[in-house]
Amino acid sequence: MLRTVPSGFERDTAVVRREGAASTYDARFSAGWHNGIGICGGMVMATVGRALGVELTAHGSRSAPADPCAISAQFLSPATAGPATVHTSVLRRGRGLSTGSASVVQLDDDGVAVERLRALAACGDLDTAELGAGASPPDLPAPERCIGLEMAPPAILRGSPMLDRVEHRLDPASVRHLCGAPSGRGRIQGWLRLPGGHEPDPLTLLLAVDSLPLVSFNAGETSDAVAAVELTAYVRGRPAPGWLRLSHVVRDCGEGYVEQDSEVWDSADRMVAQSRQLARITAPVLV
Amino acid sequence: MLRTVPSGFERDTAVVRREGAASTYDARFSAGWHNGIGICGGMVMATVGRALGVELTAHGSRSAPADPCAISAQFLSPATAGPATVHTSVLRRGRGLSTGSASVVQLDDDGVAVERLRALAACGDLDTAELGAGASPPDLPAPERCIGLEMAPPAILRGSPMLDRVEHRLDPASVRHLCGAPSGRGRIQGWLRLPGGHEPDPLTLLLAVDSLPLVSFNAGETSDAVAAVELTAYVRGRPAPGWLRLSHVVRDCGEGYVEQDSEVWDSADRMVAQSRQLARITAPVLV
Repeated sequence: MLRTVPSGFERDTAVVRREGAASTYDARFSAGWHNGIGICGGMVMATVGRALGVELTAHGSRSAPADPCAISAQFLSPATAGPATVHTSVLRRGRGLSTGSASVVQLDDDGVAVERLRALAACGDLDTAELGAGASPPDLPAPERCIGLEMAPPAILRGSPMLDRVEHRLDPASVRHLCGAPSGRGRIQGWLRLPGGHEPDPLTLLLAVDSLPLVSFNAGETSDAVAAVELTAYVRGRPAPGWLRLSHVVRDCGEGYVEQDSEVWDSADRMVAQSRQLARITAPVLV
Repeated sequence: MLRTVPSGFERDTAVVRREGAASTYDARFSAGWHNGIGICGGMVMATVGRALGVELTAHGSRSAPADPCAISAQFLSPATAGPATVHTSVLRRGRGLSTGSASVVQLDDDGVAVERLRALAACGDLDTAELGAGASPPDLPAPERCIGLEMAPPAILRGSPMLDRVEHRLDPASVRHLCGAPSGRGRIQGWLRLPGGHEPDPLTLLLAVDSLPLVSFNAGETSDAVAAVELTAYVRGRPAPGWLRLSHVVRDCGEGYVEQDSEVWDSADRMVAQSRQLARITAPVLV
């Protein structure tokens, strides 16, 4: 039984420019995107991408917001459900790409401002991008022959409500491989879409590269989770409608760290995004 | 005839903490590291890595400076020879990794401060890193059977004095491939060391990933150059003494942009760094 609910991606990454406060945007993270450690880092990055896209577009112009082309984030503390502020600044305006900085801040229980994430991004218009031919998309069985996350251990599903909001269909071969491999190593491939008919866009790709609780799949309820320390994503094109294909490769870095390389392909067989992240292996927060 | 001169890497990436100005470091870029567009981005990143390494180490402790483990930079304007200021700030102190932000500023001819680069970095101690086994190093002929940059077109050499300061020995196969390929595409492999007996260290790896004027090799004096827009580097270990091996893969992104993935291997066959950059194709500045 699929447990997916409408993703609410647009609503949950929405930003509102604050009246009277230059370059400041209000956002609200939803508890539905908790991944067991905090609000999914990809959702926080998509929120930042949306704020910078607006900020880097000339105010008063009729242009659509700029797209994130190269965005890098350092994760400073886990984001929580509730209000958040995105402080942005423009570092450079160019004809092709413009560059901005963003900081995501939330108030803790004592009302003290705590920084969640700091990001730098070069943004531009992906409509003008021409993706060259190159590598081939992952070879996958059809989505209906892949494995949904309803097969994940129940404690993982309870701890990661976001798994209801993203529809994953994993290649059975990569799930088997992961189950037999040492923690934090291996390749996993699969399909991804947002339920409720939300077609992928460039901001969705920032979620896609950080959407899978990889290590949780290894060994059931007592397995480790990973928390991103740093993630850099390159969005190479506006994705065609339909399923996305993901390929994640995880490598052990020793001393409790892993590195994950991700690629995202669209239904037209174009690689539309790739990312690399450094993550720390940590105990999962099961609720 | 090899034209290499002592690299001066240590001296030319040195930083001095400014008295009375918290978290501010003075540096001086040398004209010897000009690459035809500006001071080599890898040298600017190495300078930033050095300043953040000092800043993120507890002041007054006897610890060695922290190493850059994941560093991402947005290049805002070409750095020039002469004084530069590195403004740093600590975003997070952790037991394993600490995170900082840095901004490199220079004064233009009118005395106006211009930002050259903004960077974020997670820094830690690479002595504790255990590199897992994994991919294999590039298969290369011995350095003496590879091609030195003295074979590059004279105008490129005149425009890029930094090519005298880094000893490259390129795989003849990849040079042939590049010469026949469309601008900005292909793989190039080779050896790298700093002349004058300077053994590689983690900061050298930030230079290594950005050391080769790739596109210049394509078509002689009239070929294009590339200017980095964004570069993210992951340093995975402290390199063993001796030659480094580089593998650069360049992909066309359309609309005048290329993406370059780099890997650096040490003499002990360990991948010690990898990077990805988004770069703009631009006319070279020949002097």
